[in-house]
Amino acid sequence: MKGMVLDAKWDPKPDYTVSDWEKKTGKAITGNAIWHNPTLEVREWPDPKPGPKEVLLEIQACGVCGSDMHFFETDKDNYILYPGLTKFPTILGHEFSGKVAEVGKEVTLLQPGDMVTVEEMIWCGRCIPCRNGYPNHCTNLEEIGFTIPGAFANFIAVDEKFCWKIDSIAERMGSEEKAYELAALTEPTCVAYNAMFERAGGFRPGHFVSVMGAGSIGLAAMSTVVAFEVSPQRRELAALVGADFVYDPREVPAGEALMEHSKGEGFNFHVEAAGVPEITIPEMEKALAINAKVVQIGRAAKKVPMYLEAFQVRRAQAYGAQGHSGHETFPNVIRMVASGRIDLSPIITARYSLADTVVAIEKSMDRTDGKRIEA
Amino acid sequence: MKGMVLDAKWDPKPDYTVSDWEKKTGKAITGNAIWHNPTLEVREWPDPKPGPKEVLLEIQACGVCGSDMHFFETDKDNYILYPGLTKFPTILGHEFSGKVAEVGKEVTLLQPGDMVTVEEMIWCGRCIPCRNGYPNHCTNLEEIGFTIPGAFANFIAVDEKFCWKIDSIAERMGSEEKAYELAALTEPTCVAYNAMFERAGGFRPGHFVSVMGAGSIGLAAMSTVVAFEVSPQRRELAALVGADFVYDPREVPAGEALMEHSKGEGFNFHVEAAGVPEITIPEMEKALAINAKVVQIGRAAKKVPMYLEAFQVRRAQAYGAQGHSGHETFPNVIRMVASGRIDLSPIITARYSLADTVVAIEKSMDRTDGKRIEA
Amino acid sequence: MKGMVLDAKWDPKPDYTVSDWEKKTGKAITGNAIWHNPTLEVREWPDPKPGPKEVLLEIQACGVCGSDMHFFETDKDNYILYPGLTKFPTILGHEFSGKVAEVGKEVTLLQPGDMVTVEEMIWCGRCIPCRNGYPNHCTNLEEIGFTIPGAFANFIAVDEKFCWKIDSIAERMGSEEKAYELAALTEPTCVAYNAMFERAGGFRPGHFVSVMGAGSIGLAAMSTVVAFEVSPQRRELAALVGADFVYDPREVPAGEALMEHSKGEGFNFHVEAAGVPEITIPEMEKALAINAKVVQIGRAAKKVPMYLEAFQVRRAQAYGAQGHSGHETFPNVIRMVASGRIDLSPIITARYSLADTVVAIEKSMDRTDGKRIEA
Amino acid sequence: MKGMVLDAKWDPKPDYTVSDWEKKTGKAITGNAIWHNPTLEVREWPDPKPGPKEVLLEIQACGVCGSDMHFFETDKDNYILYPGLTKFPTILGHEFSGKVAEVGKEVTLLQPGDMVTVEEMIWCGRCIPCRNGYPNHCTNLEEIGFTIPGAFANFIAVDEKFCWKIDSIAERMGSEEKAYELAALTEPTCVAYNAMFERAGGFRPGHFVSVMGAGSIGLAAMSTVVAFEVSPQRRELAALVGADFVYDPREVPAGEALMEHSKGEGFNFHVEAAGVPEITIPEMEKALAINAKVVQIGRAAKKVPMYLEAFQVRRAQAYGAQGHSGHETFPNVIRMVASGRIDLSPIITARYSLADTVVAIEKSMDRTDGKRIEA
Repeated sequence: MKGMVLDAKWDPKPDYTVSDWEKKTGKAITGNAIWHNPTLEVREWPDPKPGPKEVLLEIQACGVCGSDMHFFETDKDNYILYPGLTKFPTILGHEFSGKVAEVGKEVTLLQPGDMVTVEEMIWCGRCIPCRNGYPNHCTNLEEIGFTIPGAFANFIAVDEKFCWKIDSIAERMGSEEKAYELAALTEPTCVAYNAMFERAGGFRPGHFVSVMGAGSIGLAAMSTVVAFEVSPQRRELAALVGADFVYDPREVPAGEALMEHSKGEGFNFHVEAAGVPEITIPEMEKALAINAKVVQIGRAAKKVPMYLEAFQVRRAQAYGAQGHSGHETFPNVIRMVASGRIDLSPIITARYSLADTVVAIEKSMDRTDGKRIEA
Repeated sequence: MKGMVLDAKWDPKPDYTVSDWEKKTGKAITGNAIWHNPTLEVREWPDPKPGPKEVLLEIQACGVCGSDMHFFETDKDNYILYPGLTKFPTILGHEFSGKVAEVGKEVTLLQPGDMVTVEEMIWCGRCIPCRNGYPNHCTNLEEIGFTIPGAFANFIAVDEKFCWKIDSIAERMGSEEKAYELAALTEPTCVAYNAMFERAGGFRPGHFVSVMGAGSIGLAAMSTVVAFEVSPQRRELAALVGADFVYDPREVPAGEALMEHSKGEGFNFHVEAAGVPEITIPEMEKALAINAKVVQIGRAAKKVPMYLEAFQVRRAQAYGAQGHSGHETFPNVIRMVASGRIDLSPIITARYSLADTVVAIEKSMDRTDGKRIEA
Repeated sequence: MKGMVLDAKWDPKPDYTVSDWEKKTGKAITGNAIWHNPTLEVREWPDPKPGPKEVLLEIQACGVCGSDMHFFETDKDNYILYPGLTKFPTILGHEFSGKVAEVGKEVTLLQPGDMVTVEEMIWCGRCIPCRNGYPNHCTNLEEIGFTIPGAFANFIAVDEKFCWKIDSIAERMGSEEKAYELAALTEPTCVAYNAMFERAGGFRPGHFVSVMGAGSIGLAAMSTVVAFEVSPQRRELAALVGADFVYDPREVPAGEALMEHSKGEGFNFHVEAAGVPEITIPEMEKALAINAKVVQIGRAAKKVPMYLEAFQVRRAQAYGAQGHSGHETFPNVIRMVASGRIDLSPIITARYSLADTVVAIEKSMDRTDGKRIEA
Repeated sequence: MKGMVLDAKWDPKPDYTVSDWEKKTGKAITGNAIWHNPTLEVREWPDPKPGPKEVLLEIQACGVCGSDMHFFETDKDNYILYPGLTKFPTILGHEFSGKVAEVGKEVTLLQPGDMVTVEEMIWCGRCIPCRNGYPNHCTNLEEIGFTIPGAFANFIAVDEKFCWKIDSIAERMGSEEKAYELAALTEPTCVAYNAMFERAGGFRPGHFVSVMGAGSIGLAAMSTVVAFEVSPQRRELAALVGADFVYDPREVPAGEALMEHSKGEGFNFHVEAAGVPEITIPEMEKALAINAKVVQIGRAAKKVPMYLEAFQVRRAQAYGAQGHSGHETFPNVIRMVASGRIDLSPIITARYSLADTVVAIEKSMDRTDGKRIEA
């Protein structure tokens, strides 16, 4: 089959100590410190075969994530920007949906023809964190499109336990094609959902919610939402999917804007999805409501100068979040789409064929518009 | 001034032991056991004068609550139906809004002309439960329209600390009159909000929510909501303000309907607002999702036969709720209305003058339509 | 090998509808409605062989649980008392510890000689409840000593993922034998821990805690604990492991005693571990502190007449709990024992050889003293 | 009467903008930016007279707090070190107990002779944060010994609502004198309790708990507690009141020690009570258990370089805490002492007469031993 393959050279930075585990597994814990000179092309890749508990999926749609760009974009020394767990070469793509083409012989939950979307985090279910209820922190984690082959390809084989059926979305949409596209948005929405609802415990109806970096703000439907985003196209999209007010943070100081919108009370819930906490969190600190929550979703290998005195005086708390597995997250997001409570379709702004996925990644790199999707 | 006054005779039922506290204060803890032969009329009542920390409000709108009917409706022995704290004679009416007409000399937060809505629970702020953060469980509680004069009247005097400004609602509506009407719905909405969000901790986006008795279901906007209600007019209203499905529980067995809507998974959040838990909770027990919550808002002096084994197997929990004070409830509900996130105006189905409020109560007693309001 | 085997006849009560699933699997969902005329004996049983991910354990200690008695005790129609999931014949015993004798070829976490204790609930890790973080509510649940062979035997084979190492307990005790005995108490302690801390969210230091049925009350060490228990021997044990006050509920009305101990404030946390909620919960309802929690651990196929009005007025909540898996429960309980924070060894009051385990069950049935253990 | 009075000159630093509110009230929001050249002496002060809702207390014991030293210690420009709300001159002292000498005419909860301890935060109960349940964040806050006269004096007048009876402690101790001393430890213990249990939600039995700065660690009794403290005397005290291990963080790198004690799992709960988060939090970041909590109690006007990526990967959260009022904190701490669950008496290492309180403050400033108390 064909797949969009990223390759890079294992060439640790001089000041980085490669751990024994990294040597043994070939997986870099800090990608940015090891992977040099990345290349990206659509090329031949061996057809996957499903194991006994796996299903073979024919990919129907796959979105471009910020991580996909960070694999290809490089720092001044030509190392990839992405800071986390990675193993190359591999096929990229982890926000996807597909149709079951074949099932392994121990598969019980799915059958050929089923429509599904898939978790990206391949948790073992056996290590101590998994047993304790923390699958996003699995000791033996593999990540689709990061350490094992992803979905910018014709096919993928995955354990059935990572698949979630999307029939309910197809029923509502009355179109399989549309359902596959929407379902490919499930994974990134679940990352936001996990951060906001599982990790930070959500907000109350009536709360003021600020979003730095125009993410899946449709979730925040019961509250006043103010979003900040540098791209004008994305500001338009944010308004379309539910933000009450959208600003360019380079023109409007976020802290001041939030204080004004809340008439001096401060915002109750702050979402950092821009990946620049060293810039955004000091603004949030200027607009903390009493009992406010700050949740960090964006990833950044930066120290953030935090004024904890402000968190004490304002009774505030900060939560670090990663992942999307466990805690009812996938089924709840699927229900929201299926019941029509959220409609994220406006954020899909471009569609590409598999052959053109490298172009999709390159175009995404200007970070001006919405989600690009291979479908 | 004029007020709609309920009077009744202090005539304890033979099997009820009147406590010393009841004797001393003239307040009945169990109204149904003491108040006999109620009468209701609009008549003269002394003009209230604001104390140093109080404001005098000119009443602008006041809704009819189920409790108002329970004061006037009687059991077979002619005792009032309402089971709780009461002292008569008094003016009824506790879901209201008003304009500040006069301020006491130590008032600092309000001035004449301010538009406000008011808590009904007059908590002292000094007893142990108040200090511990439980104002709804104040030891020295007075209740407007229950133990002290209410708002089916021209004026009322209340401590400024129970008043919440509604300018933001007037700004959105562009009409003071409309704002006063909507604001009179704040108190009952806050009772639901307190029960669902403060007491039971809310539900997650995507959760299935069932409501027994068509309450302020607009709150449940991010989830699939199924409501049960015997009155056909109220079923229509429930659909108007956000219920996805509405049934007559006498025709459709609630437990079965909920299991069907959730494709066998059960509902995550059950609201008992019908006041007949002995009938509704056994239905809920048939449709508990794993980790489900049941919250009791309706009041009933009945033993409920609960099958706790079902709560164990389904990992479920039950919460008792009363009141609406504290915990950010009033300001959050006001924000929701002001931001347009909820619009409860369709549930107001009739308007009366003060002189006709007794008729309003009588008509409410058939329990077929929405909120009646004096405005 | 030898094992203590319980057998009974599949003979559904006339008014019980056997489900298709029960027919297909041979597992009774409601044991009491199906299993007739139980017998119990120590006899030969095939030696278990570990699968690829399993370990073979040489049993070192196994406690007698109330469930073990309920398998053998019968109602007036000679059906077993135990209400839940069961499949017979099988070996009983599910509170145990053992030494790893052999490991399957894919085992990575354990090696021969390791000392472990084991979860009783064999959750699949793949069904929807497991993925959602609710292993105690696994759709494909098997239970050691209930539906599959247990630990009143020489050996058992279990997936390594259900085993928790107890080296830390052996280090503290300086004795492997003592460590195995204590470790056999882990599972019942985890049931209490899961109920009190995971399900009901625990209590605060300083809270008043009442326990109906003298369970693992040592957990409650930071609060005033009052326990109620009909057996005089068990009342002594409760005092030994940390209860401040212990009463016979037939002599001292529990509700009154709790109000007296709390000087009228009521108790904050109530544990129902006696399995008679229809008797104990009405007592708890008389002594609810504001914001009190009631947690149901004991199992009973009874309707409980609950006065939810009391839960509303007192801001109280009730939690149903079962199981012990997930949520960090096993490792936390092991840590408590290893750090010396709890010492439950006094509750072991008798030790038996495997050949005498039927006697142990029979003697337990008078429910007068502590834990009997095969060691 | 006599009182230990701190005075200082209102002399704002050149780069500090004095707000209108500060000008109007004479209260400095940032004490360190305004109060210059502090002096401390025991001198005459007018006798307080109780208002209608106030009681006059004869002071029985008063502890020295770190804040008391920070009022007197100065930076290189001779400004006081304390960063927060202050108004001078005033009498210092806010950790105290006393006997009711006289009651105002509207007092209902106390009578002459009653033994009490007192909250230090004088919350109004009427502003929006107070109504919302956040008394520690009162808009109209006064603080005893910070902005209004404190308890290093013969008498103090306070509203009865800030007083908590300590009879239960006297009953347990069998000595009024001892009870007054212990009760004077209530306020600082409540600050820790509020931070750990109300703000950060507590920890579970079995959790690993680290404490930076040897605070009221006795609270952590159900877990493994490791404390870090530079003073050798205080390390001894920490061990006496319950720490399992105590280190000097200048000799033992805290992050490494915590990882070793937890065998690589990390600590679940981290308490910053040392007031140097810029040093301690980076150490905590090295030893975060999955799902760990960090709670900031110490006050510091410093930016803390936080690596939020570590909080994301480890599923960690940080809480800012201040104050001790509300949320059942005072009554729960009193119960713990009265029930003998905690005994903080070993931390009182010196006693002084009122005339010698300036010496007590000066001796405290070497920060080597435990609590000094005027009794």
